[in-house]
Amino acid sequence: MNLVEDYLKIRKHSEAICEPLQTEDYVVQPIDDVSPPKWHLGHTTWFFETFILKPFAFNYAVFNDQYNYVFNSYYETIGNRVVRTDRGNLSRPSVADVYKYRNYVDEAMVTLLSSEISNEVLELLMLGFNHEQQHQELLLTDIKYILGNNPLFPIYSENHEEVYLKNDLPNEMISIKEGVYEIGYNGTAFCFDNELNRHKVYLSEFAISSALVSNADFLAFMNDGGYQNFNHWHTEGLAWVKTNHINAPMYWYLIDGNWFQYTLNGLVPLKMDDPLTHVSYYEAYAFASWKGLRLPTEFEWEVASNLFKWGERWEWTESAYLPYPGFSKAPGAIGEYNGKFMVNQKVLRGASIATPKNHSRPTYRNFFHPHLRWQFTGIRLAR
Amino acid sequence: MNLVEDYLKIRKHSEAICEPLQTEDYVVQPIDDVSPPKWHLGHTTWFFETFILKPFAFNYAVFNDQYNYVFNSYYETIGNRVVRTDRGNLSRPSVADVYKYRNYVDEAMVTLLSSEISNEVLELLMLGFNHEQQHQELLLTDIKYILGNNPLFPIYSENHEEVYLKNDLPNEMISIKEGVYEIGYNGTAFCFDNELNRHKVYLSEFAISSALVSNADFLAFMNDGGYQNFNHWHTEGLAWVKTNHINAPMYWYLIDGNWFQYTLNGLVPLKMDDPLTHVSYYEAYAFASWKGLRLPTEFEWEVASNLFKWGERWEWTESAYLPYPGFSKAPGAIGEYNGKFMVNQKVLRGASIATPKNHSRPTYRNFFHPHLRWQFTGIRLAR
Amino acid sequence: MNLVEDYLKIRKHSEAICEPLQTEDYVVQPIDDVSPPKWHLGHTTWFFETFILKPFAFNYAVFNDQYNYVFNSYYETIGNRVVRTDRGNLSRPSVADVYKYRNYVDEAMVTLLSSEISNEVLELLMLGFNHEQQHQELLLTDIKYILGNNPLFPIYSENHEEVYLKNDLPNEMISIKEGVYEIGYNGTAFCFDNELNRHKVYLSEFAISSALVSNADFLAFMNDGGYQNFNHWHTEGLAWVKTNHINAPMYWYLIDGNWFQYTLNGLVPLKMDDPLTHVSYYEAYAFASWKGLRLPTEFEWEVASNLFKWGERWEWTESAYLPYPGFSKAPGAIGEYNGKFMVNQKVLRGASIATPKNHSRPTYRNFFHPHLRWQFTGIRLAR
Amino acid sequence: MNLVEDYLKIRKHSEAICEPLQTEDYVVQPIDDVSPPKWHLGHTTWFFETFILKPFAFNYAVFNDQYNYVFNSYYETIGNRVVRTDRGNLSRPSVADVYKYRNYVDEAMVTLLSSEISNEVLELLMLGFNHEQQHQELLLTDIKYILGNNPLFPIYSENHEEVYLKNDLPNEMISIKEGVYEIGYNGTAFCFDNELNRHKVYLSEFAISSALVSNADFLAFMNDGGYQNFNHWHTEGLAWVKTNHINAPMYWYLIDGNWFQYTLNGLVPLKMDDPLTHVSYYEAYAFASWKGLRLPTEFEWEVASNLFKWGERWEWTESAYLPYPGFSKAPGAIGEYNGKFMVNQKVLRGASIATPKNHSRPTYRNFFHPHLRWQFTGIRLAR
Repeated sequence: MNLVEDYLKIRKHSEAICEPLQTEDYVVQPIDDVSPPKWHLGHTTWFFETFILKPFAFNYAVFNDQYNYVFNSYYETIGNRVVRTDRGNLSRPSVADVYKYRNYVDEAMVTLLSSEISNEVLELLMLGFNHEQQHQELLLTDIKYILGNNPLFPIYSENHEEVYLKNDLPNEMISIKEGVYEIGYNGTAFCFDNELNRHKVYLSEFAISSALVSNADFLAFMNDGGYQNFNHWHTEGLAWVKTNHINAPMYWYLIDGNWFQYTLNGLVPLKMDDPLTHVSYYEAYAFASWKGLRLPTEFEWEVASNLFKWGERWEWTESAYLPYPGFSKAPGAIGEYNGKFMVNQKVLRGASIATPKNHSRPTYRNFFHPHLRWQFTGIRLAR
Repeated sequence: MNLVEDYLKIRKHSEAICEPLQTEDYVVQPIDDVSPPKWHLGHTTWFFETFILKPFAFNYAVFNDQYNYVFNSYYETIGNRVVRTDRGNLSRPSVADVYKYRNYVDEAMVTLLSSEISNEVLELLMLGFNHEQQHQELLLTDIKYILGNNPLFPIYSENHEEVYLKNDLPNEMISIKEGVYEIGYNGTAFCFDNELNRHKVYLSEFAISSALVSNADFLAFMNDGGYQNFNHWHTEGLAWVKTNHINAPMYWYLIDGNWFQYTLNGLVPLKMDDPLTHVSYYEAYAFASWKGLRLPTEFEWEVASNLFKWGERWEWTESAYLPYPGFSKAPGAIGEYNGKFMVNQKVLRGASIATPKNHSRPTYRNFFHPHLRWQFTGIRLAR
Repeated sequence: MNLVEDYLKIRKHSEAICEPLQTEDYVVQPIDDVSPPKWHLGHTTWFFETFILKPFAFNYAVFNDQYNYVFNSYYETIGNRVVRTDRGNLSRPSVADVYKYRNYVDEAMVTLLSSEISNEVLELLMLGFNHEQQHQELLLTDIKYILGNNPLFPIYSENHEEVYLKNDLPNEMISIKEGVYEIGYNGTAFCFDNELNRHKVYLSEFAISSALVSNADFLAFMNDGGYQNFNHWHTEGLAWVKTNHINAPMYWYLIDGNWFQYTLNGLVPLKMDDPLTHVSYYEAYAFASWKGLRLPTEFEWEVASNLFKWGERWEWTESAYLPYPGFSKAPGAIGEYNGKFMVNQKVLRGASIATPKNHSRPTYRNFFHPHLRWQFTGIRLAR
Repeated sequence: MNLVEDYLKIRKHSEAICEPLQTEDYVVQPIDDVSPPKWHLGHTTWFFETFILKPFAFNYAVFNDQYNYVFNSYYETIGNRVVRTDRGNLSRPSVADVYKYRNYVDEAMVTLLSSEISNEVLELLMLGFNHEQQHQELLLTDIKYILGNNPLFPIYSENHEEVYLKNDLPNEMISIKEGVYEIGYNGTAFCFDNELNRHKVYLSEFAISSALVSNADFLAFMNDGGYQNFNHWHTEGLAWVKTNHINAPMYWYLIDGNWFQYTLNGLVPLKMDDPLTHVSYYEAYAFASWKGLRLPTEFEWEVASNLFKWGERWEWTESAYLPYPGFSKAPGAIGEYNGKFMVNQKVLRGASIATPKNHSRPTYRNFFHPHLRWQFTGIRLAR
């Protein structure tokens, strides 16, 4: 493992994602959940500066004192910060300044990594790598939102497919026997604190689908009045549908009687065989109910994950995001990473086409509030 | 079992709870969660009328066609209804009319129950009994809210204690071995659909407290800056604290430097040894974190419940309210009873001083959103 | 003038307005603008207690210290008070207690008025009389709202007509010459501070209608798509229409293709020849625009008021509620009576069927925010 | 008059205002009232395209069909448009594309204006000129807001003074006799419809200050507890102060015990002698009350305006924004220009340092809601 090489490779990938953008695309925040791309680029840099360079690099001079206020996301330990909903109101620092900031921090990091580092720094470095990869995922989904909600429907890139697996496997229900299974990470490489501790769970017998739900499947639900049939919805899901006038997945547009979808390649006719994406948990739950099935729990998913293909969609599970037995937070600011979000969220398993290669694994736990759907979310059914 | 006797006993108990009220107390809805007492009295009556008398009683004439609109709570199957937040805007039907409605339905029910009834009716009757008991609990907590948030602090009744168990057991941590346990109801009497199916869970070793957290315990947390220390809080909990200027449990008042609590007996000095009540899940979680402990899961609670005294406080658990394996909803309107609320809520176990005798049991699952605290909620710690 | 007699007559009239109510009707506050009837009864009593008895009655003992908090409306000088939107959340003081309060204060007032009083007390007494009369108007409109927004549509009273003038005058445009006119009160009896000082205004030539707009007139506007035609609306009016789904005056209901209106006598078929009522300023303005006319200013209205019949509807004018030249506030709490509301409101002139006899006069200025319509508002056109 | 020259001069001035900006500064919308600079540049261009080129230029080809949706501000007649609060969510069209759009329209306009034009086009052209000048004012105030609410406090330009008149006149009260005065525009050059018709008003005797209120004056109000003393405030003003935690004019910052102000030159110590700016009408009213004086009406201001210097601050008046006698709207979309805003707003008179030279005049009526203060507003007192 060459740390400098790994570091630079990961850092350059973030910038590559932004390469097709115009300066203006870096700036806006059309909804609270979507951060401006320049904020992602600055925040991931701030992470290395704050948690590695400031405490561990000899004589390191902070690039700009005020950036701590601008680029701190949610670390109460680190002090005040711009409120999340104001990120898109900040025209400065400019995109050029953010890239200068990246270069400045990268140089200092390369210097640091070129000499020997302690285990403590190595652990923080691995966290920084994975943190930046998580933001790479958000970068792409946020960019898609920024472009896909613009009335001009600009194309992100002609070369970016949203589907790369062919649906060539038979769609079948895979049966799993009841019994005690082990859940959680037990390797020696990096994992997040929320994947620990590895522990036993008892699973009743279940079956899980080998394939994801397709656009055609979901269109059948819509055509059968699925959004109107209250029997399939949670009370809160139905309220969400009505309040927000939801009648299709995000990015679906009905134009002159035909369905289109906005993709990273622009607005195209709905691809019926593609795996469905951009649905909320509420929609996933209602769809499963309409099919007479259900969503898998995160434990069922993890146990069965070696038996089906995954990686194009984050898959909603029925599980709430909760700590595993024996979960503990790291001391200090790093302890704010995951634990404080363990309420009112749902677990997603798998990975999406926005996920950097090798970033996810079968024990990886992603989590979002049940109404969110700007990620590349999808549905796998269980029984 | 004498059904007529049981029916009348349960019905009279609802009215007994309201006996100390003045007419005006029956009418108001100071917050969305608190329904006017006369609404509870009407709604429980409507439940018997709608689900038993209308389909099963010979020649039954509905008391008033418009009451379906006024007293339907949330059954989409049954049709339109007054929006929940408007219940306190309705001066009519008057309290006297609601009692007339009760008498009218009671007479018809007694007639029905005096002859032989089918199993289907019997099951609906048991549901109606338990439904009315659930509303008896809400009646008392809603009445407490109505009186306890009035600047005149009226007394509900001198005879209503909020604590009846003496804290005479030693407060110790009870250890439970790891292993596979059975969870869920498996008796032959009534249970709610959310207690089914009985199934196996694997529990890691844990310890659970024999006693509930006391007012003195929580005051120590407050005096140690517990509400300000972000390390102990969920992000959403901290936002709730700040937005609502929370700095003590509900009904605690600091007057000239001394803490008072509003109880059903009026405003009294804080009773230090009493079990804490009227805290949200967020506060329960933060308190547990401050103690270096945690809340039990609902499964841990159920397994250990025969080893400690319970019944005075609804106890927050760390578990999200989710369906058990194999959970299924009843067909028709009755299927709307529980399942559609299984998202974004936390499970509480036990019972409170507002719970009718014999209504709860070790497998009983109550559930509320994490910020709510007008119920008699409390804290039991685990490790 | 017999002050004791006048006092008791005015006080009894407030109670007479409430005579048809059931206890529950006294309690609720379905919208922020509508206060519970028992609050009106208590507040007008508090006014005499606070501004006359406490400072001027020998050895007067306050009825209940806490009532100052409950019944102070908006007098910052007098101290803290229940927030306006919480008035309907207070079940106590009970209706019976409010009547006891009235009797207690009435006795003390009668004692005070039975001996000689100073000019200062006399002025406050006249203000108290007129204040109570203003609340009598609100009492009736608030009661109408409470009953008219109840799904049971209870009848207030069979004896209460909403129209007493016959529309027997020809509907014609009355022309007024241009010139300098005097505006504002110049008699020797009571008037409100906002009617002073009497001053000169220059009016261009104008014409004003002898009759009010009728229900039939407004229905023609509706049938011509008036609510949809943006050309006739203020931007803020149009937003109000869309946000609140307004498509008819308040209390109009379309049932099986026929228009009905809720009146103090209950729900009745729309009376086409009756003067229109319960429209907002926005609707009044749009209607006038649709007719190719406009609303009069308050000065035009005052100058022409002796040439037409008025008194059944409060009539919207185009004038904003602003101080007259030389306007000054009284010192102390009484100075908060009118001046602090002189922004963002529109002036209404005339009187309505809810206005006590002899309470209004040609110089009387009523005022409401432009979106409000629960008063008996109407439209007179000008050119 | 050379129309081509005038046209290009005005158009270039808008671009000159944006010259110091970085691309990112063109994009953001930190509050609803502040539009992104690139939107202003596009909207003023759209105005010429829509109202002159499309109907009058031979064979004119629209630059981009979708720009009508993006750059229509509020003309219902012209069709759907992006909601105002979403302007800052649109990264496209890019700044470069907006400049291309300007050039494209400018070329077509120059061609059109190089041949003879009708009176109808001439009138629309004059409206277009004045419309663009109004947006030049907004451009500068919006830019100030964008930069002045950024935590980095970037400097707009070192060369842009916010004060150019020296306060060398004695500050005295100028007395005006009572009588009939003529109000409104009566020249032959351009004026807005809201300045018509010229008509007579009767003014009581009054006095008006020759100088504007200074920063030092307002600081004295603050130091005397002016923001806390409810006696000086409208009820709605006080609610605005409390809800928004207002304790100083906009752009004032208290740093280590000293007051600073953000200006177009960056953050500088408060200049005591400069005319106060960035206060709301509510603050202006409260300040005048504290001084024992009042704000002038717009009529008083207009009558006295030749007796004092004005032009650096928009001056709040006590007058509501209402139509003059005989006011009429133009037919079609242009009729939406002014009339539909004549409710709930206050009139400002004068001009500010952001106003283009020769744009304002003594009869000019600007108008804003009473809580707004991001314009260069100021205070002149009257008695």
